[in-house]
Amino acid sequence: MDMPIDMQHQAMGYDRTATMFSPEGHLLQVEYAEKTVRLGSSSIGLVCSDGCFILADKRIDDKLIVAKSASKVYEIDSHIISSVAGIVSDARVLIEKSQVLAQQHRVTYDSPIEPELIVKEISNIKQQFSQYGGARPFGVSLMIAGMNNGKPELYTSDVTGNYLGYHANAIGEDDDKIKEKLREKYNKELTIKKGVKMALEIFKEIQGDKFNMDKFELAFIKKQGNIQKLDGEDIKDLK
Amino acid sequence: MDMPIDMQHQAMGYDRTATMFSPEGHLLQVEYAEKTVRLGSSSIGLVCSDGCFILADKRIDDKLIVAKSASKVYEIDSHIISSVAGIVSDARVLIEKSQVLAQQHRVTYDSPIEPELIVKEISNIKQQFSQYGGARPFGVSLMIAGMNNGKPELYTSDVTGNYLGYHANAIGEDDDKIKEKLREKYNKELTIKKGVKMALEIFKEIQGDKFNMDKFELAFIKKQGNIQKLDGEDIKDLK
Amino acid sequence: MDMPIDMQHQAMGYDRTATMFSPEGHLLQVEYAEKTVRLGSSSIGLVCSDGCFILADKRIDDKLIVAKSASKVYEIDSHIISSVAGIVSDARVLIEKSQVLAQQHRVTYDSPIEPELIVKEISNIKQQFSQYGGARPFGVSLMIAGMNNGKPELYTSDVTGNYLGYHANAIGEDDDKIKEKLREKYNKELTIKKGVKMALEIFKEIQGDKFNMDKFELAFIKKQGNIQKLDGEDIKDLK
Amino acid sequence: MDMPIDMQHQAMGYDRTATMFSPEGHLLQVEYAEKTVRLGSSSIGLVCSDGCFILADKRIDDKLIVAKSASKVYEIDSHIISSVAGIVSDARVLIEKSQVLAQQHRVTYDSPIEPELIVKEISNIKQQFSQYGGARPFGVSLMIAGMNNGKPELYTSDVTGNYLGYHANAIGEDDDKIKEKLREKYNKELTIKKGVKMALEIFKEIQGDKFNMDKFELAFIKKQGNIQKLDGEDIKDLK
Amino acid sequence: MDMPIDMQHQAMGYDRTATMFSPEGHLLQVEYAEKTVRLGSSSIGLVCSDGCFILADKRIDDKLIVAKSASKVYEIDSHIISSVAGIVSDARVLIEKSQVLAQQHRVTYDSPIEPELIVKEISNIKQQFSQYGGARPFGVSLMIAGMNNGKPELYTSDVTGNYLGYHANAIGEDDDKIKEKLREKYNKELTIKKGVKMALEIFKEIQGDKFNMDKFELAFIKKQGNIQKLDGEDIKDLK
Amino acid sequence: MDMPIDMQHQAMGYDRTATMFSPEGHLLQVEYAEKTVRLGSSSIGLVCSDGCFILADKRIDDKLIVAKSASKVYEIDSHIISSVAGIVSDARVLIEKSQVLAQQHRVTYDSPIEPELIVKEISNIKQQFSQYGGARPFGVSLMIAGMNNGKPELYTSDVTGNYLGYHANAIGEDDDKIKEKLREKYNKELTIKKGVKMALEIFKEIQGDKFNMDKFELAFIKKQGNIQKLDGEDIKDLK
Amino acid sequence: MDMPIDMQHQAMGYDRTATMFSPEGHLLQVEYAEKTVRLGSSSIGLVCSDGCFILADKRIDDKLIVAKSASKVYEIDSHIISSVAGIVSDARVLIEKSQVLAQQHRVTYDSPIEPELIVKEISNIKQQFSQYGGARPFGVSLMIAGMNNGKPELYTSDVTGNYLGYHANAIGEDDDKIKEKLREKYNKELTIKKGVKMALEIFKEIQGDKFNMDKFELAFIKKQGNIQKLDGEDIKDLK
Repeated sequence: MDMPIDMQHQAMGYDRTATMFSPEGHLLQVEYAEKTVRLGSSSIGLVCSDGCFILADKRIDDKLIVAKSASKVYEIDSHIISSVAGIVSDARVLIEKSQVLAQQHRVTYDSPIEPELIVKEISNIKQQFSQYGGARPFGVSLMIAGMNNGKPELYTSDVTGNYLGYHANAIGEDDDKIKEKLREKYNKELTIKKGVKMALEIFKEIQGDKFNMDKFELAFIKKQGNIQKLDGEDIKDLK
Repeated sequence: MDMPIDMQHQAMGYDRTATMFSPEGHLLQVEYAEKTVRLGSSSIGLVCSDGCFILADKRIDDKLIVAKSASKVYEIDSHIISSVAGIVSDARVLIEKSQVLAQQHRVTYDSPIEPELIVKEISNIKQQFSQYGGARPFGVSLMIAGMNNGKPELYTSDVTGNYLGYHANAIGEDDDKIKEKLREKYNKELTIKKGVKMALEIFKEIQGDKFNMDKFELAFIKKQGNIQKLDGEDIKDLK
Repeated sequence: MDMPIDMQHQAMGYDRTATMFSPEGHLLQVEYAEKTVRLGSSSIGLVCSDGCFILADKRIDDKLIVAKSASKVYEIDSHIISSVAGIVSDARVLIEKSQVLAQQHRVTYDSPIEPELIVKEISNIKQQFSQYGGARPFGVSLMIAGMNNGKPELYTSDVTGNYLGYHANAIGEDDDKIKEKLREKYNKELTIKKGVKMALEIFKEIQGDKFNMDKFELAFIKKQGNIQKLDGEDIKDLK
Repeated sequence: MDMPIDMQHQAMGYDRTATMFSPEGHLLQVEYAEKTVRLGSSSIGLVCSDGCFILADKRIDDKLIVAKSASKVYEIDSHIISSVAGIVSDARVLIEKSQVLAQQHRVTYDSPIEPELIVKEISNIKQQFSQYGGARPFGVSLMIAGMNNGKPELYTSDVTGNYLGYHANAIGEDDDKIKEKLREKYNKELTIKKGVKMALEIFKEIQGDKFNMDKFELAFIKKQGNIQKLDGEDIKDLK
Repeated sequence: MDMPIDMQHQAMGYDRTATMFSPEGHLLQVEYAEKTVRLGSSSIGLVCSDGCFILADKRIDDKLIVAKSASKVYEIDSHIISSVAGIVSDARVLIEKSQVLAQQHRVTYDSPIEPELIVKEISNIKQQFSQYGGARPFGVSLMIAGMNNGKPELYTSDVTGNYLGYHANAIGEDDDKIKEKLREKYNKELTIKKGVKMALEIFKEIQGDKFNMDKFELAFIKKQGNIQKLDGEDIKDLK
Repeated sequence: MDMPIDMQHQAMGYDRTATMFSPEGHLLQVEYAEKTVRLGSSSIGLVCSDGCFILADKRIDDKLIVAKSASKVYEIDSHIISSVAGIVSDARVLIEKSQVLAQQHRVTYDSPIEPELIVKEISNIKQQFSQYGGARPFGVSLMIAGMNNGKPELYTSDVTGNYLGYHANAIGEDDDKIKEKLREKYNKELTIKKGVKMALEIFKEIQGDKFNMDKFELAFIKKQGNIQKLDGEDIKDLK
Repeated sequence: MDMPIDMQHQAMGYDRTATMFSPEGHLLQVEYAEKTVRLGSSSIGLVCSDGCFILADKRIDDKLIVAKSASKVYEIDSHIISSVAGIVSDARVLIEKSQVLAQQHRVTYDSPIEPELIVKEISNIKQQFSQYGGARPFGVSLMIAGMNNGKPELYTSDVTGNYLGYHANAIGEDDDKIKEKLREKYNKELTIKKGVKMALEIFKEIQGDKFNMDKFELAFIKKQGNIQKLDGEDIKDLK
C-alpha cells in the first residue's frame, strides 16, 4: 500500500456516496461535486457604492445557439440576480425554487424578499442532498446579488450548502486566481461602471488570448432601480 | 495502475449509478446515456423566415413495417413538433407528457402553450432522473420546434436536462458533423423550402452512399399555419 | 484485459440491473430479456385484404395437458387477439391488463377500443420496468392484431416498450428467418385463407422435420366478423 | 475461464436475485426455487370419468406426529382440493389465500368458484414475487383439482406463476418419471377407483422398496358429490 | 474449487439473506437460524390421557437471578402454554402476540381460542420473515400445548413457519436424541404423572452428570382444569 | 483457510448487519454491540431487605465537567431508577421513552407503573433493532431497580432485548468479575446500608489502585420512600 | 494480515456506514465524523461569576468576505448563544432547529427555554443519525451557553449525540490542549472580563505566531442582561 492517501481512499470506496466520511473526516463525493463547479464558466459579482452587479462569461460562442437562451445570469425577482457554475440543469432547479420563494414572499408579506433568505433556503436544500442518501449532491455553486432595503448585498452558496456574504467574489473556472486579483483591486468606493471595468480587466488578464468580449453578459441593479442587462460589446458603453 | 483514466474509473465503479460523481466531477452514467443518443437516428431542425421545420431520418426501411408508425417526428400540439434521438420508448413517455401539458394549457388558459414551457418541463423531469437514485436517466434527446405568438422557435433538451434555444440544430448520429455544416450554410433569411433543400444536401454529404430519400420525413409549420407532413420523394416537391 | 468487450462488461457488472447504461450506452439487462423472448415459441401475424390473423406454434405436444389451456393466442376483446413470446406468466399479467382496458373502454365510450391504445398502454408499462429499479423488465414480446373501424391492424411491442405497426410480422424463435421469408412472400392482396397457407409453408421450411401440424393454432378476424379459432389439422380446412 | 457456463454465471452473480436475467435470458433464482419443489414429496392428480382425485405421498412416517396434521392435501372449498410440493409454509400462505378467495366468491355470487380462478389468482401472486425485488419467489408448486359445473378439472401452477390445465399430472420428487408413466397408462375412461389403483402402481414402481402404503393419503371428488378422504391401507378399500 | 459444497456456497454468498435460494434450492439463512434453535435449552411436551404438559430445562442456575423470571414456559391463555428454544427476545415478541390474539378471541367470540389458531398465526408471521427482505428470520421454535374443547393438543412451529401436531415432541438442544427416546417410550395411555416421570428419565439419560433437578420447571393442564406449575424438586411430588 | 473461525466469518462478512445469521447461528453485529457495553463504566444493583439501590462508577473525573451532568443513574419515575452501560446517547433515548411510559401510566391508571413493564417495553424496542434492517442495534445495557407495590425489584435488559429479574447484578466493565463476587457475598437479608458497603468493597477489590471514591454515585429507594441520591465521599455517611 | 487493527477494519469495511459496529464494538463512521469536528475552528466557553461567554476563532480573514457573515457564534434566543465546530452547513440546520424550538417554547409557555432542553433536543437528533441508515451522522459539535433562571450554564453536544454540562470547555482544533490549560487556569470566581482575558491568553499560547486578534469574536451574557457581541481588537476593551 504505497499509494498516496487519496488513491487509497478511492480504492477503499470512501468516495462512493455523499453519506460516508473518509477516515480523515472528509466527504469525498461532495469534494468531487466541487470539481464540477470549477469546470463551470466563471462569473464575478461586486457590491458597489451605487448598486451591485454580476459579470458572467457565458463561454458559449456558437452561432447556431440563440444568444439569450445561453444566459448564465438569472433574474430571481425584480431586485435579485444570480449566476451559477457547475451542472446547468441542477442550477435551473434551484433558480426556479428561488423564483417561487420570492413570489410567495411578495404575496404573503407584500414586500420584496431579502436576498439572504433566498440563499439560506437554497443552501438548506443543498445541505440535505449532502447528508441523506438516495440522491447525489447538487453540483452547482450560486452567486446571488440583490438589494435589501436599498442596500446592495452579495452572497455565494457552495456545494455543501455553506454560504457567506461577500463584498466581491467569483465562482467557476479559475475562481482562485480571480479572487486573488479582486483582493488587490477591490475597494468599497467603486461605482458599478468602474467595477465592471475592473472585472473585465481581470477576465482579460486571466483568460489572455482566449478573452472574447462577445461571450460576456452583465446584469446590474442600481440603488432604487431595477435589473438592467447588457451583452458583449454593449457592456463597454455602460454609463 | 497504468490504465487510462477512463478505464480506471470504470474499474473503480464511478460509472455505476447516475448519483455518483467521479473524482474529476463527472456523472459517468449520464455520459453513457448520451452515447445512446448518438446511436439514434439523426434529424435537423431549422428556424426559417417563414416558419420552422424538422427533417428526420427514420432510418427504418422495412417493407413489413407500416411507414407512418415508424415516424420519428411527433405532433405535441397543433403548433409544436418534436423529433427524438435515443431510446424510443423513453421518448414516447416524454412526448406523451408534453401532449398532456399542451392540452392542459389550452384548457386552463384558452391559448396555445409556448414551446419553451414544454421543453423546460421535459428537461426538469430529465434532471430529476440524473440526480435521484432508483432509476436510470432518460436516454433520449429531444428537438422541439414550434410557434410562439407567430414567431418560430427551436429548442433542444439533452440527457442531463439542460436545454438551449437554437436557430438551427441536429441531434442523433453524426450530430457534430451536421452542426458543422449548418454553421457554414445557415442564415436567417432561409425559407422553409430553401432550408429543407439545404438540410437534404447536408444529409446527402454526410451519409454518402447510404443516403436514401425514402427514409426521410419532413414536418413543417408555416407562420399562422398548421403542421404539414411530407414523406420520401414527396419532400422534394415542397413549394 | 484481452477479453472481448461483451465479457469485459459482464465482468464489470454493467449487466446487473436494468437501470444501468454500459459505457457504450446499452441497457444490457434489457438485451438479456430479449434473449428470453427469442427462446419462446414463434407466431406469425398478418394483415390481409379480408381481415387479419395470428398463426402460433404452441410448441407443447403433451397428451397430459388440456390442449386449449396451452393456447398461445389470447382474446383481448371480441375484435382484438394477441400472441406472446417469452415468459408466459409475465405475458398473462399484460394480457389481463389489456382485457380490463378494453372492457373499461367499452363501458366508458360504448365503442370497441382501437388496437393501438392497447399496445401503447402495454408498452408504457414495459418502458417503466426498464427504467425504474426494484423489479426486472418484462421478459415478453406481444403481437397484437385487431380491427380498427373495419380496418385490420397489426402491432408488435418489444421488451423495451418500443412498438411499431406492421403489415406482417413474427415473434419468438427464429423470428429473423421468418421475417426474411415474409418480406419475400407477403403482399397486401393476400386473403386470410392464402395468408395462412403461406404462413404454414414458412413454418414448414424453417422447422423442417420438427414441423408438426398438431402443435399449431390459428385465430383470425374477418372484416365485420368476430374472432374464430382453429387447431391442428382443422387449420388446413379453412375456407 | 474454463468453468462450465453454469458455474461462470454463479461466479458472476447472475443467480443472486429473482430480478436479474442471466446473459442467456434465464431467471436463475427462479430456477433454483424450482429445485426446492423437486425436493418436495410427490403427488398425482387425475381427471376421471366420474370425478377427480389427488393421491399424495405424505412422506412423513413419525409416530410422534398426529397423522392428520401432516396431510399434504388441502381443502380449498367443498368442491376444490389441492396438493403442494416445496416449502410447506409458503404453500400454507397460498392455500389460505385460496380459501378466502373461494369464500368471498360464494358470498358475492352465491355460487362455487371455478377452479381456474383460484389457480390464476395464485399464479399471479407467484409472478409478482418473480418480478419484483425485496422478497424471494414462492418455492412451491400447487396441483389443484376440482369441479366446474359438474365437470372435473385439474390444474398445476409452477414456481414462475405459469399454469396449465391437465388430464393427469404429478408434482414433487421424480415428477418427470411419474409423468412418463402417466402418459403410457392414462386414458379418459378411467374411473376414480381404477385411476387410484393405477396411481398407486406407479408410486410402487418408482419408489420400489421405499414404497409404504401408510404414508399415502387420497382425496377425491365424485361428480355432484363432496370431497372424501382416505388414509393408508383404507385407500385400497375404495369402491 | 475443491472446497466442499457448503463452503463453496458460503464463499459465493448464497447464505447472506433469507430471500435467496442456493443453487440446490435451499434457504441457507433460514437453516442457520435453525442452528440457533438447537443452541437453545430443551423442553419436552406430551399429550396425555388426562391432559398435557411441558417440562422445560431452564438451563440457568445462577443464584443472582430471580428463578421465576428465568422461566421458559409461558402462559398464553388459561388453557394454553408454550415453551421456546432459540433467541429468547424473539420468542417474547411472538408469545406476546399470541397472548393478545387469545384475549381478542375471548372478547370477540366469548370462548377460548383453539391452540391451532395460535400456532398458525405465529407460523404465518415466521413465514413472512423468511420470504421478505429487510429483516432476519425469527430464530426461535415454539412448542404449544393446550386444550381444545376438553381435548389436549400439542403443536410445534419451526423457524421456517412450518408447524405440525404431535403426540409428543421436544425442541432445543439434543432434540433428535430426545425424540428418539420418546418414540421408544411414549404411548397414548400415559397420565400426566407418568408422562412427567418418563420425561425426567429421558432428560437424565441424555444429560448424564449435568442433570440437575433444580433447573427444571413443569407446566401442565388437566382436562377441564387450569394451568398448574411446579419447579425443581417439587416436580417429583406431582400427583 | 487456516484462519480461526471468528476471522473466517469476519472475512466472509457474516458480521456486517444485525439481520444476518452466521453459519453457526450467531448474530455477530449484536455480539459486537455487546462489546460496546463491556467498554462502558460499571454499576452494581441490589435488592435489599429494606429497599433497593444502584451504585455506579461515573468514571468521569474532569473538573471542567459539572458533576451532576455526568450522572449515570437516571430517575425514570419517583419509584424507579436506572443505570446504563454502553453508548450514552443510545441510553438517553431509551431512558426518555421509559420516563414517558411511566408518566402515561400514572395519567391513565392513576398508579405507579410496575418496573417490569418498563423493562419489557425497552427490551421489545431493542429486539426490533436486532431483527429489522436499516438501523444498528442499541449498544446499551440497562439495569432497572424500583418498587412494585412496596416490594423492591431489579431487572437487567441486554443488547438483544432479553431481560431477567435479579437479586443482585452488575453491568459494564468487568461485570463478570463483579458478579462472581456478588455470588459469594450477597444474601437477601442485607440492608441498603450493608449492601452499599459490600458493593463499594467489591469495586475496591476489582479496581485496585484506580479506585477513587469521588467517581461514585449512589441512588437508593427505601420501602415506601422516594429516591435518594449521594455522591462521592457522602456515600460512606449513608445511614 | 500484519496490518495494524485500524487498517484491518478499514480493509474489511467496518467503517463504511454509521449503522455497523466493528468487532471491537466501535462505530467507526461516527469516529470519522469526530475528526471533521477537530478540523473545525476552535472556540472556548466559560461559566463566570457574572454570566457566561463564548470566545470563537472565526479563522476566516478574507477581506472579500463580509465579516459579520463569517460569524461562528449564533444567537439561539435572547438568552442562549452557541458556537460550532465541523461542517458549517450541518451546524446551520441544527441552529435553525434550536431557534424554532426556543420560539415555540416562548409562545407555548411564555417563558425563556432552559438551555439544557435545547442541547437535549439537538443531541437526540444527532443520536438518530448515528443509529438509522440512509444518511450520514451530523459532522458537528455544538457548545451552548445561556441563562437558566439567572444562572449561567454551559453545555457541549458531540457527534454521537452525547452531551454534558461544563464549567468551561473548548471545541474544534486543538481542543485537548485548550482544555488542559483550562483545567489549570479556570476557577469559578472568574468574571467575564477576566475569563475572556484568560481565554485570549490560552489561544495566544496555543496558536503562537498564527494568533491574530482580528479573527476572534466574543459573545457574552451578563446575569439579567442580554447577549452582547464584540469583534477583533474591540474585545480587549471589554469592561
